[in-house]
Amino acid sequence: MELKSDTVYNFSAGPAALPKAVMEQAQSEFINWNQLGTSVMEISHRSKEFIQVAQEAEQDFRDLLNIPDNYKVLFCQGGARAQFAAVPLNLLGQSTKATYIDAGYWAESAIDEASRYCNVDTFDAKTDIDGQSAVKPASEWQIAPDSAYVHFCPNETIDGIEINDLPVTDKPIVADMSSNILSREIDVSQYGVIYAGAQKNIGPAGITIVIVRDDLLELAHKMLPSVLSYKELAEKDSMFNTPPTYAWYLSGLVFKWLKSQGGVKAIEQINREKAETIYGYIDQSSFYRNTIHPNNRSRMNVPFQLAKPELDGKFLELAKERGLVALKGHRAVGGMRASIYNAMTLAGVQALVAFMQEFEAEYA
Amino acid sequence: MELKSDTVYNFSAGPAALPKAVMEQAQSEFINWNQLGTSVMEISHRSKEFIQVAQEAEQDFRDLLNIPDNYKVLFCQGGARAQFAAVPLNLLGQSTKATYIDAGYWAESAIDEASRYCNVDTFDAKTDIDGQSAVKPASEWQIAPDSAYVHFCPNETIDGIEINDLPVTDKPIVADMSSNILSREIDVSQYGVIYAGAQKNIGPAGITIVIVRDDLLELAHKMLPSVLSYKELAEKDSMFNTPPTYAWYLSGLVFKWLKSQGGVKAIEQINREKAETIYGYIDQSSFYRNTIHPNNRSRMNVPFQLAKPELDGKFLELAKERGLVALKGHRAVGGMRASIYNAMTLAGVQALVAFMQEFEAEYA
Repeated sequence: MELKSDTVYNFSAGPAALPKAVMEQAQSEFINWNQLGTSVMEISHRSKEFIQVAQEAEQDFRDLLNIPDNYKVLFCQGGARAQFAAVPLNLLGQSTKATYIDAGYWAESAIDEASRYCNVDTFDAKTDIDGQSAVKPASEWQIAPDSAYVHFCPNETIDGIEINDLPVTDKPIVADMSSNILSREIDVSQYGVIYAGAQKNIGPAGITIVIVRDDLLELAHKMLPSVLSYKELAEKDSMFNTPPTYAWYLSGLVFKWLKSQGGVKAIEQINREKAETIYGYIDQSSFYRNTIHPNNRSRMNVPFQLAKPELDGKFLELAKERGLVALKGHRAVGGMRASIYNAMTLAGVQALVAFMQEFEAEYA
Repeated sequence: MELKSDTVYNFSAGPAALPKAVMEQAQSEFINWNQLGTSVMEISHRSKEFIQVAQEAEQDFRDLLNIPDNYKVLFCQGGARAQFAAVPLNLLGQSTKATYIDAGYWAESAIDEASRYCNVDTFDAKTDIDGQSAVKPASEWQIAPDSAYVHFCPNETIDGIEINDLPVTDKPIVADMSSNILSREIDVSQYGVIYAGAQKNIGPAGITIVIVRDDLLELAHKMLPSVLSYKELAEKDSMFNTPPTYAWYLSGLVFKWLKSQGGVKAIEQINREKAETIYGYIDQSSFYRNTIHPNNRSRMNVPFQLAKPELDGKFLELAKERGLVALKGHRAVGGMRASIYNAMTLAGVQALVAFMQEFEAEYA
């Protein structure tokens, strides 16, 4: 079994790997950006140079997702967990109820936080089909008629579950897309609010993007901290206060990289191929196992278990020697997890599968 | 007049220059950190490697400010403006009132936000002495007896005002030290809460440090978003959610750099020398003017005006050619502003003064 590799493939669930070309460019201009003799992180967010960075990033992001003109794009701080509070505090208006679709760990975390601010109507969408974990079809989701909005999390990083349909409702749909934004085409006009922490498919940890429909900007609760106010941020072009400028700049580089790859449609095809490569191998193996029904397997996060859990440590150790890192499963699930966001190449997934085959041959 | 320079001295008020040695180290290990074959921004915040970064940064920060054991140090998101909301929401408890000392722009911004959550008792501490702007001595500050805490901002970046004494009170003292933390010795035990956005004396924009006394962790309002909860962050070692890992890492490098310079006592001496160099020159000049009384001149932010404001553009243009950048004053004040935080060297201040002398000789 070949043990060493010079190439590192990083399967971290987040903060996750960024595209190599982006990292190389950022390194080369780290100290002397744009011929200014300083780093982009050392200039005012109100300088014309940074405002150009900020505006280009927003425009590229809009282009990538075809975001309609009646939606604002906000660059925020606080992570998706800040949005767990910001969503009810911005959207409840006179209502005291919101419906949350529960299909996994992150949906449940959003529910916990929302329960501080409103009456949460939870719909348990988890089910199983032929002994495999799955999500009930959206047509079965029950939505309270007096809900201010319907919240769901279309990709559950820990459970390895992805939801491929949308709530059937006339209420504003709110989606936590932290782990699958930009990985597949979506129709933004179907949503009221989309939010995503950056550290999987956008950029480094510390910046969060919110897409919000204009008509939802007027509903804020009086106890909403201004830094979480969609309206404040929209009115100030996300510069209500000093934004995380370096994270914004890096996100902009990622958007330009994604455009150079052919955009979301092209990366979706690659993501599909990556997912088929690893799930296909797992399904034909009697040594590895994924317990999610094919309907709901995540294209971004692939949890899998070894038939002999006592070999988990050996698997991780040998994988690491081969340059395949951050494969340990989340503590809530155990086993392994390969996170294969946009920045993970097909070659990386193929290297992982090749290693899994060799490991199976030697240790099964 | 010599026009060109290869060295750039960056006087940005924030995001501000970081120490050159820090930036060079960060660049060199940008893609391959700690021999991992990835960037430090691409690894899990829960990995043992990152936890070491996080813990060392906290310990170095504690060492630099001699922070007593009964204080927690939190690494947060949202900037000082998030703290403008977090302070009342964390500290009011059963009280509905807090006293705010007003000596400038940032104190007033904190008051605006706090007014959303409580009855703000504002004490206007602004005064003038011999026609120069100053701050009334703390012994004169009136503090409402039923205040939950007393808030002040000891360095006003826009006004160029620094306060050298402390509220006289038995209430918890809360200080926004965004622009002068680590620039001078302080006695942390005198405070209830100290907070500081990073982008002046700590690191890049996107991380905020809060120092909070243990007995103040139990007073949170029920509408406080969890990401702003001192108690939640303290219990989770600031990893309640994914922290801005790269900003945390860079802040850690700045703390190590500051220790290598001799710590806060040594940098305070240099800061004093820098301030004396520029104020000393301004005071003997009839062409430049600073309107703050010597009692309250900021050692961090030096606003100054030219006797002929029509030369402002020329001054900025020639300064930039000389590598002296980001000297334009805040729009609320006009004229010039030199921000001379810890990362600005005495040589940088001397280069600025030399340029000011030459400019005065040629254009006065």
